Amino acid sequence: MQIDGVARQTIWLNQDGWSVSVIDQRRLPHVFEILILNDLNDAARAIQDMAVRGAPLIGVTAAFGLALALRDDPSDAGLAEAYGRLLATRPTAINLKWALDQVQEAVRHHVPHTRAEAAYATAQAMANEDVETSKRIGEYGLSIIKGLSEAKSGAPVNILTHCNAGWLATIDWGTATAPIYMAHQQGIAVHVWVDETRPRNQGAFLTAFELGQEGVPHTVIVDNAGGHLMQQGQVDMCIVGTDRTAANGDVANKIGTYLKALAAYDNGVPFYVALPHTTIDWTLDCGREIPIEERCAREVTHVSGVTATKTIEEVQIVAADSAAANPAFDVTPARLVTSLITDQGICAASREGLLSLFPEHDT
Amino acid sequence: MQIDGVARQTIWLNQDGWSVSVIDQRRLPHVFEILILNDLNDAARAIQDMAVRGAPLIGVTAAFGLALALRDDPSDAGLAEAYGRLLATRPTAINLKWALDQVQEAVRHHVPHTRAEAAYATAQAMANEDVETSKRIGEYGLSIIKGLSEAKSGAPVNILTHCNAGWLATIDWGTATAPIYMAHQQGIAVHVWVDETRPRNQGAFLTAFELGQEGVPHTVIVDNAGGHLMQQGQVDMCIVGTDRTAANGDVANKIGTYLKALAAYDNGVPFYVALPHTTIDWTLDCGREIPIEERCAREVTHVSGVTATKTIEEVQIVAADSAAANPAFDVTPARLVTSLITDQGICAASREGLLSLFPEHDT
Repeated sequence: MQIDGVARQTIWLNQDGWSVSVIDQRRLPHVFEILILNDLNDAARAIQDMAVRGAPLIGVTAAFGLALALRDDPSDAGLAEAYGRLLATRPTAINLKWALDQVQEAVRHHVPHTRAEAAYATAQAMANEDVETSKRIGEYGLSIIKGLSEAKSGAPVNILTHCNAGWLATIDWGTATAPIYMAHQQGIAVHVWVDETRPRNQGAFLTAFELGQEGVPHTVIVDNAGGHLMQQGQVDMCIVGTDRTAANGDVANKIGTYLKALAAYDNGVPFYVALPHTTIDWTLDCGREIPIEERCAREVTHVSGVTATKTIEEVQIVAADSAAANPAFDVTPARLVTSLITDQGICAASREGLLSLFPEHDT
Repeated sequence: MQIDGVARQTIWLNQDGWSVSVIDQRRLPHVFEILILNDLNDAARAIQDMAVRGAPLIGVTAAFGLALALRDDPSDAGLAEAYGRLLATRPTAINLKWALDQVQEAVRHHVPHTRAEAAYATAQAMANEDVETSKRIGEYGLSIIKGLSEAKSGAPVNILTHCNAGWLATIDWGTATAPIYMAHQQGIAVHVWVDETRPRNQGAFLTAFELGQEGVPHTVIVDNAGGHLMQQGQVDMCIVGTDRTAANGDVANKIGTYLKALAAYDNGVPFYVALPHTTIDWTLDCGREIPIEERCAREVTHVSGVTATKTIEEVQIVAADSAAANPAFDVTPARLVTSLITDQGICAASREGLLSLFPEHDT
């Protein structure tokens, strides 16, 4: 997708053949800055501090992080240490473990001095594959938007999304946004209600930014507003991403997703979850077992923005001396999800639904 | 209630016998500042710009505003113009109209030169009555908190509230907070989850501030977090205020209230709405008829806070060029409300429930 008219991806291997670049998402949309990852530490910090975020991008960054680590220490001990270090960066996104497992599997039978090369190849293949995955999600989701557009005789389809499951959360196209971009490119009228997504404002900062760069009509709303808009008939569908999907179709996603799913259900608005198959955790029977990351209170008590003089400033927005809590994800029960839109097709949010697309997991 | 250890109310007549002081709530909790209202314009602006807010306080401020106006122009035309000007300041809170009607009724049969005096007397009586109303709501609500505390063998009762239905929204005690303050003063352990309440952050700014000043344990959360906390069993009850209650028990309150009511219902958490009888609009059969104020987009795109150097700065927190929408209230259907806690007792959120407490409205 584009930034200032230039086609970009969120992560790429530099021309030196070993260092890795990512877009630093902490300063978007105010400043476009590229961060260069030179070693394991850089990669782990980029994930932990959320310079990169979004389940698919976290996975690919971790894969490159393992490659960077093996370049410095390709021993078994080095591999194990780097794997552990990267796995600990974010607890909720399951792609992280999936990606690390892929790379570990690809390199473990190599002798140490060829491991880094194998890891880079795996990471790059994973990045390429993620783009294809997003495109397939986009094509499946597009059919849903097309149907709504036809039902509305071409009037704009109003789509509510929460957080950023956009191309910035993946390598390109996004998960929840892929169908939206494809619809827009095909001339189907869409309008996106963008949840601000407190506390880190990924909606107001990232989703609004990337939709704006692609020329997709959108309106930012506070997270409180979506229920009212649904009551008023101003939302035709919701679509969100997920950081981990349990085998029964329960989905963990950014905190607040559950509230939107409740409102959608209460108002008969279809609620879709877009996901690459890599976010499915077949080991979990239900969403209650998904670990929920508690992040630091400062994300709630302070916010960064642009001042009148165009500098970026952080301000405190909670009464001094008040404590704050910051659970980063919640679990939306499968019963509230209309369908899952995966790279292998659309299915019911249930064990049966998922197994219909992924029969190899029927054990 | 107290600010820096000094007992305060939100509005008072000054010693000169005619000018009116209010706490300027736009700068709380960062700065404690008193705003003096000298005429109709000052009063109308204080309401419109939200120097004062909260349905009960809006009503009393409007009543004093009418008194100030009649001091300058006690003619019938002056009365009608001031009434219209004040009524137009905020469309959702019904107390505004109720308060203006009370004053108009009290002065209309006076000759012009005694009207201002009658208006001041009515406004002051209304302020005094509001304090008593809040206390009665507090006593009724206290019985509910006591019951939960006993059921938990004295462990802290976790109470979630949205926006500020605190003493700052009234003259003293608050509506939703009155039972909490009374429980705390009686030594019943409580802990309040304070919804930030975007876009104007009345929870993080005002509710957290006033609870802190009274020493009530509390934790600020983003509006997205409440559903997750309820899923986790960390909320024993919700209590909110309302700006207008329809005759069937539907309640209009700050945007986002509906989402919390849905989550409470989904998790079996009791959801209470505290209200003075003056917020009941007997002319409306249901909540769909309540006008919902749309406020300016800048409340969404910008936020004020305290910088590291202790100055107050406004920063932009939405991607430039993105539009924003800002509906200020939503309607929670009566079916999601466990009970209404009024100054006349506790009742079901239904026409029958309300009529059991206010039989004079059974027409």
